[in-house]
Amino acid sequence: MNTNTRSAFYISDRTGITAEMLGHSLLTQFEEVRFNEATLPFIDTPSKANEAVNQINQACEADDNRPLVFSTLVNSKLSSIVKTANALYIDCFQVFIAPMEAELKLKSNHSVGRSHSNRGSGYSKRMDAVNFALAYDDGQAVKDMREADVILVGVSRCGKTPTCLYLGMQFGIKAANFPLIPEDFERLALPSTLDAFRHKLFGLTIRPDRLVRIRNERRPDSKYASLRNCESEVRLSEALMKQENIDYLDTTSRSIEELATVIMQRAKLKRQAY
Amino acid sequence: MNTNTRSAFYISDRTGITAEMLGHSLLTQFEEVRFNEATLPFIDTPSKANEAVNQINQACEADDNRPLVFSTLVNSKLSSIVKTANALYIDCFQVFIAPMEAELKLKSNHSVGRSHSNRGSGYSKRMDAVNFALAYDDGQAVKDMREADVILVGVSRCGKTPTCLYLGMQFGIKAANFPLIPEDFERLALPSTLDAFRHKLFGLTIRPDRLVRIRNERRPDSKYASLRNCESEVRLSEALMKQENIDYLDTTSRSIEELATVIMQRAKLKRQAY
Repeated sequence: MNTNTRSAFYISDRTGITAEMLGHSLLTQFEEVRFNEATLPFIDTPSKANEAVNQINQACEADDNRPLVFSTLVNSKLSSIVKTANALYIDCFQVFIAPMEAELKLKSNHSVGRSHSNRGSGYSKRMDAVNFALAYDDGQAVKDMREADVILVGVSRCGKTPTCLYLGMQFGIKAANFPLIPEDFERLALPSTLDAFRHKLFGLTIRPDRLVRIRNERRPDSKYASLRNCESEVRLSEALMKQENIDYLDTTSRSIEELATVIMQRAKLKRQAY
Repeated sequence: MNTNTRSAFYISDRTGITAEMLGHSLLTQFEEVRFNEATLPFIDTPSKANEAVNQINQACEADDNRPLVFSTLVNSKLSSIVKTANALYIDCFQVFIAPMEAELKLKSNHSVGRSHSNRGSGYSKRMDAVNFALAYDDGQAVKDMREADVILVGVSRCGKTPTCLYLGMQFGIKAANFPLIPEDFERLALPSTLDAFRHKLFGLTIRPDRLVRIRNERRPDSKYASLRNCESEVRLSEALMKQENIDYLDTTSRSIEELATVIMQRAKLKRQAY
């Protein structure tokens, strides 16, 4: 028996993404344990719930340890089935409904979680924003940049594109991005295209050694990827952003979620969709 | 006093994205109430916690109703400050730690949530996968398609690109996509480029009327966007996918999370990163 291996299941009648995020975050509080994580989405019938119970019980036998089950099941009939498994059942959803009902003096709808399940205006806004990020990537389109909620600037490969995509996907924010290139540094001035959008600019920067590694993947042994060039570009881009009073953020040790959240906060952007 | 308006706060020492997802999902259970939602991320000092308390209490006075506070604060000193606010405090994290400690017979690290906060291998895998999706979008690159975990096929504008990006961003899955175009339908055969990758193909389809609307945004009044052409392309692409035994999914009424989760499940893909 290995006390340091456990199975963890994320169970939901929908995608299970909320259970995964919360459960995974809880597991990181117990670093000594090796967890085998599995997601069981769309558990929306008694027979699927029974299948889930079988899978959990098999893991229990294999590990010789009770699995942890993180559930966002809404339907009490289904959760009562899953609770019969030989596991620690952690209810990430239903447990909060009773205090909310008492506070709001209302009964809950007891429907399956609908945060992403129906495609209302929120969905369209997020997809429009992702398409916007793709169309306005790397300065390739400028005509409708007034539609942008924010425009990220920074040297090539400092993390602008994924951040724009995440801002669109997660928050429905229309984020364009525009590269700062050597000729901007020579003039020590922003590209004139951006003049009309000064108030929307937000900068990204990166540690030169990290930039070298990223650029080398794309263009090995180029001047573009050399330490000397990366150091110079990063230094000059930061000088330019300071001169132009553009708030900026170092991407080197930040996750995409963190970058996007800090930008939302500092640029005072409002979430457009859930 | 309007009993049907409430403020809801998502409070975290990190990005607050987990609290938002869970809390928002809980709020959808009470459709009668109009919620004003606000996220307070990076609450990681007592003074920021006190500021949060002020903000919550102001909302309480303005609404003449207690706000709901969804918290993923890990630090008990900070959560004890936020709990003094005049609100219903819903602890989305700490409440689960005690039963987990009992089950695992271990003490938790009581550190701030680290699911996305440090950039380990998970982060790189997700960013690599996003960059892969961008490089292998719309059939523009094929040489390293053997690196793909999955290749989405379907008619132009049926939802392939956002789905690939989400698979990369959320699950670290390398997803390429390849359009099915009229000449494929004339031959009623897959593009030969895909021959070597048959086992990785997954199809997307869409309702023709929805496709008309999406294509019209890009090319208004074109033959490409006409109902007649969209109906024909959709019908033929579905026939081709059936003929070639490619599993496929209708994107019309599914959220991006749902599409990605169903593809993960049906194509038996394993999450590569959290």
